[in-house]
Amino acid sequence: MTRAELEHFIKEVFPQVAADFTVEDVAPMEITMRLNVAERHLRPGGTVSGPSMFALADVAIYLAILAMIGPRALAVTTNASFDFMRKPAAGVDLIAKCRLLKLGRVLAVGDVLLFSEGMEAPVARASMTYSIPPAA
Amino acid sequence: MTRAELEHFIKEVFPQVAADFTVEDVAPMEITMRLNVAERHLRPGGTVSGPSMFALADVAIYLAILAMIGPRALAVTTNASFDFMRKPAAGVDLIAKCRLLKLGRVLAVGDVLLFSEGMEAPVARASMTYSIPPAA
Amino acid sequence: MTRAELEHFIKEVFPQVAADFTVEDVAPMEITMRLNVAERHLRPGGTVSGPSMFALADVAIYLAILAMIGPRALAVTTNASFDFMRKPAAGVDLIAKCRLLKLGRVLAVGDVLLFSEGMEAPVARASMTYSIPPAA
Amino acid sequence: MTRAELEHFIKEVFPQVAADFTVEDVAPMEITMRLNVAERHLRPGGTVSGPSMFALADVAIYLAILAMIGPRALAVTTNASFDFMRKPAAGVDLIAKCRLLKLGRVLAVGDVLLFSEGMEAPVARASMTYSIPPAA
Repeated sequence: MTRAELEHFIKEVFPQVAADFTVEDVAPMEITMRLNVAERHLRPGGTVSGPSMFALADVAIYLAILAMIGPRALAVTTNASFDFMRKPAAGVDLIAKCRLLKLGRVLAVGDVLLFSEGMEAPVARASMTYSIPPAA
Repeated sequence: MTRAELEHFIKEVFPQVAADFTVEDVAPMEITMRLNVAERHLRPGGTVSGPSMFALADVAIYLAILAMIGPRALAVTTNASFDFMRKPAAGVDLIAKCRLLKLGRVLAVGDVLLFSEGMEAPVARASMTYSIPPAA
Repeated sequence: MTRAELEHFIKEVFPQVAADFTVEDVAPMEITMRLNVAERHLRPGGTVSGPSMFALADVAIYLAILAMIGPRALAVTTNASFDFMRKPAAGVDLIAKCRLLKLGRVLAVGDVLLFSEGMEAPVARASMTYSIPPAA
Repeated sequence: MTRAELEHFIKEVFPQVAADFTVEDVAPMEITMRLNVAERHLRPGGTVSGPSMFALADVAIYLAILAMIGPRALAVTTNASFDFMRKPAAGVDLIAKCRLLKLGRVLAVGDVLLFSEGMEAPVARASMTYSIPPAA
């Protein structure tokens, strides 16, 4: 799936959160996503919340998988692991750089680095496993 | 800190999300929390979203720590690990049963089972590490 | 499978490591295992090594699964998460108390607390996912 | 610390396991390590065991940290997360490519990809947190 197809898919299937995210770039086994940071993603002090970082990492790995195998809304996260390493900078978007490490018939594994836009050191690291339903 | 003090604390410090959570029970090294499930926590099909489960597990471990050491707003999550095992039931709240496994001077570790209210099998398991700032 | 059947199975299939472990107790969805600590499991200072703790947690969850579904040597670990919380005591065995949280058709999830024998506070926490091959 | 200093350090401090590992390459915030696979690292079928993969990932992150801050034998692993993605190839060494993502005053975080030598797809992914003791 292309960047446009992924953005269309997410608007169709997850209308509640589609506005939160932008697909920045897609390549084989890789994706870069943006969290369009708004008031609802913040904690006191202007830092992006943990659940918002979870959401960004999760959608990045999900769309990286769909970009490779096509739209299957029913893929589900079975495992997630996070290291929160630095406080996100206030007032800037969060960028997720994701790579797929495994794309099997049943399980896919990806990892993600999250960056405050314009910073070199990552704010968080995440890895997730998705369970992929059989193709219809 | 008692149940009432914890609920007061979270309203003061995290007004954005305080309405999402209820402290059900507090005991030494243990806490039970409720996610008051509303439309904004759901995904298509009526299932509770991953970020909402993250938020519930995170606040449960955070408040379990504060119940033991008193209010320190600056404790931060450094690591989180999740296993998502079953789809949450539609139309019911999510209950987090949390125990602290370590409460050190610098690091605390807790784990959590998340249940759809009234179900016996957990929907998810989580463990998290918090870094505790020195007392003022 | 009973305790005797599990010990027989592990001697047959993993002769290299069978002497390291004792099945202490088996119950539905639960198992208690012992690491018979020997020189080869230790680090300087007499503390049990990380790889030995990994091995104990891994075998405990594996045998808890086999106790429920029967011998399937090909079940494989797909994910593992550990929190190392306290230094193991020198000169005593390590005890793993394991519960299965999910036993699905394809994936099983268990968690484990590891204790230095005779101590109340756990030295480590682990959770693992196993992928279960189809029954022959 | 240079490659030679790291290998000397590990021989001094962990004589039990020093022969298992070779430092292949060290760079700022990066290290490449080899598990010199021998009979004792194997499971039936000739595949490298989980505990041996744990040991390789752990020592790689440990030495990557020491390469930056100098010899501190007391740094300890507090958290580890693994995804086991493919069966290691029989009869070849395992290579760990490690990068440090955070090197703080108190905590360091690194991640690792493990490869069967000569293969392009990783067999496993790991991330670990180390707690760093104050400098003497």
